[in-house]
Amino acid sequence: MDLIEMIQAMARDAKLSARLLRGARRGEKDTALGFMAENILARKEEIIKTNAKDVTLAREKGLNPAMIDRLTLHEKTITSMVAGLRQVAVLPDPVGELTGMWKRPNGLKVGRVRIPLGVIGFIYESRPNVTVDGAALCLKSGNAVLLKGGSEAINSNLILEEILTEAMKKANLPEKSIQVIPSTKHEAVGILLGMDDYVDMIIPRGGESLISFVAENSKIPVLKHFKGVCHVYVDECADLEMARKICFNAKVQRPGVCNAMETMLVHKKVAPSFLPGMIESFKEAGVEIRACENSLRLVPGLLLAKDSDWPAEFLDLILAVKIVEDMDEALDHIDRYGSNHTEAIVTNDYERSQEFLERVDASVVLVNASTRFNDGFELGLGAEIGINTSKLHAYGPMSLEELTTTKFIVFGSGQVRT
Amino acid sequence: MDLIEMIQAMARDAKLSARLLRGARRGEKDTALGFMAENILARKEEIIKTNAKDVTLAREKGLNPAMIDRLTLHEKTITSMVAGLRQVAVLPDPVGELTGMWKRPNGLKVGRVRIPLGVIGFIYESRPNVTVDGAALCLKSGNAVLLKGGSEAINSNLILEEILTEAMKKANLPEKSIQVIPSTKHEAVGILLGMDDYVDMIIPRGGESLISFVAENSKIPVLKHFKGVCHVYVDECADLEMARKICFNAKVQRPGVCNAMETMLVHKKVAPSFLPGMIESFKEAGVEIRACENSLRLVPGLLLAKDSDWPAEFLDLILAVKIVEDMDEALDHIDRYGSNHTEAIVTNDYERSQEFLERVDASVVLVNASTRFNDGFELGLGAEIGINTSKLHAYGPMSLEELTTTKFIVFGSGQVRT
Repeated sequence: MDLIEMIQAMARDAKLSARLLRGARRGEKDTALGFMAENILARKEEIIKTNAKDVTLAREKGLNPAMIDRLTLHEKTITSMVAGLRQVAVLPDPVGELTGMWKRPNGLKVGRVRIPLGVIGFIYESRPNVTVDGAALCLKSGNAVLLKGGSEAINSNLILEEILTEAMKKANLPEKSIQVIPSTKHEAVGILLGMDDYVDMIIPRGGESLISFVAENSKIPVLKHFKGVCHVYVDECADLEMARKICFNAKVQRPGVCNAMETMLVHKKVAPSFLPGMIESFKEAGVEIRACENSLRLVPGLLLAKDSDWPAEFLDLILAVKIVEDMDEALDHIDRYGSNHTEAIVTNDYERSQEFLERVDASVVLVNASTRFNDGFELGLGAEIGINTSKLHAYGPMSLEELTTTKFIVFGSGQVRT
Repeated sequence: MDLIEMIQAMARDAKLSARLLRGARRGEKDTALGFMAENILARKEEIIKTNAKDVTLAREKGLNPAMIDRLTLHEKTITSMVAGLRQVAVLPDPVGELTGMWKRPNGLKVGRVRIPLGVIGFIYESRPNVTVDGAALCLKSGNAVLLKGGSEAINSNLILEEILTEAMKKANLPEKSIQVIPSTKHEAVGILLGMDDYVDMIIPRGGESLISFVAENSKIPVLKHFKGVCHVYVDECADLEMARKICFNAKVQRPGVCNAMETMLVHKKVAPSFLPGMIESFKEAGVEIRACENSLRLVPGLLLAKDSDWPAEFLDLILAVKIVEDMDEALDHIDRYGSNHTEAIVTNDYERSQEFLERVDASVVLVNASTRFNDGFELGLGAEIGINTSKLHAYGPMSLEELTTTKFIVFGSGQVRT
């Protein structure tokens, strides 16, 4: 059987499973999640041994240490996988929620009820624990899932599939609703993206080249996360101590992630009192500053920012800094260079806080808090399968509810249209 | 300036206008809608005269009478355009609605607020009144719109654009937020579908070939309406008089539309008492019946249904009829041949009604009511820009709320992530 036929058969099985799964009760799904946790603990040694094969191969191929690190499963990652499963089990089931109901003049009662999307195609890189996270969230939201992980994690992903589907079987749920595509070939991704007869949504998670490839080649709707070029705007009415804490956290706490600050915008009135100390702290933390000309005048010896620094997602200990005339200039800058991801203002002015919240077009807009809070767990969604920076279906972090849609249900008593 | 440059410039203007429009207040938008209604009434004669040019050209090109009919504007269609504008003005503004807010353990207050999508590309055929409907719904939901109507309606659409943007100017709203693409060339559609830097969503409305072309060529997310292969299942526990009324209405009241019934499924136990009379009524109304073998045994002389009749969207006075063993067979048939559009059951059995509502995967599922109610107005959404039969973003009829998305807003007091 060739790759196309294989993936098509898997997609068909997924669709059939989705049909069974959409009626599954919360109890059944949570039981399966519990079995998954138990199975993973019971077969821990085996998982680590299988994962070691992937790690050895990756080393032989010369993958860089960061990638090897992400690939490696050990006691701690397995504990967190299990904790993740138990956490999803505790979350409310989004399926079946009536989001509204009203009565029409002709007596029809019209409601909207939350239902699963159907089949999700989840495409991701390296970390094998994402296999478990993705499977758990799709199961809890009543969706079947086709998982295409990184080729270097294939053995780990396949043993996890075995363990997860065993739990599904034990819970009397359709085992084909969780399938790992057993191919390390890149073509497998392209083939999956063409299965629009069977798959309802694609979620890609990974680097820019993966996302672009998926967005350009998919016949299926894609919920994609592009860049996170996030700003903190320090307003003239900011509490400067608070601003310092927030900006430092937003840049330094974990610089390699999408919700880290990449450019700091500072109102000209507070720049003299704020910038020198702030930049000093950044330098102590090893942050390289790329500054506008006005900032250079206040803090000599900094690197001058290039045009290409303003739209850059550094994902590193690098920060662009710009002094602005007023909030309007900050808003213009964000509109021009922001990536609709996360934007924050630090201010104690009521009106400005309201205006910033209203005028900024980003999936998460914060007042007096770090950009690092754009995250499903941190915002209280309970979990996260990704962050969507396009506006359709869901804007921002996606959790269980975002893996569903609503259908209309109508209770009539013989009504016809006239 | 060539076509690509022109459409690009329009798309860029639309994006700039959308940025201004997203902060517009309800009062401003409703005032503009009011001016539009007034302007249309004031320039009625001119509209009808310009439309006559389109109609003459269409006749010369030999367009069929149904298309000419749809193209023609007269006193009555203009009155209904104006009524439509006033109706949209009365609807609540979806923008700014807080759909939820909660407090995190660290004190962060997290809310979700409804915002416009940005720029909508609306591609449609023939009827010039759709230009006004589309513009009104996009304006009220705070979106800029690029309108690409049928080439045969170009003069009508351009004078309507002039009238609508005049009203925008008078209300101090950005006039470039309503733009008709002034080209009759088919390439214009393809060019618009490539403007993913500026346009957030495409809504195509028209025949199957238009929808397929758009779906296959768009780099922008498409909310598409495919076929409406709608069923009514007459259960063994149905009130047969009610079933007769509902089935007759679903097929005959307006057979050319997507929410008309195309296949009637009848439980074998009620088939002998229900089918002969029902088919008699259908025949009197000029409906051609294509029946399964079992139906033929009950009502001799009918046409035997071919395999191709079950997935067919007749959009005509033609009906496929099938006797089923039980509800499971009806559900299987709907899963196999339905188009996720509209499905109805007629039954007085409580459990079956619940099961049908739960198990059928369609954008609207009805108990004891005609399929013809799948319509934004009829379901109480106040208006309709289209019906989405794919599941992302909105499933079913789309109105103002479906032209928006939500962003997260976060009120902090200095929180950072640890």
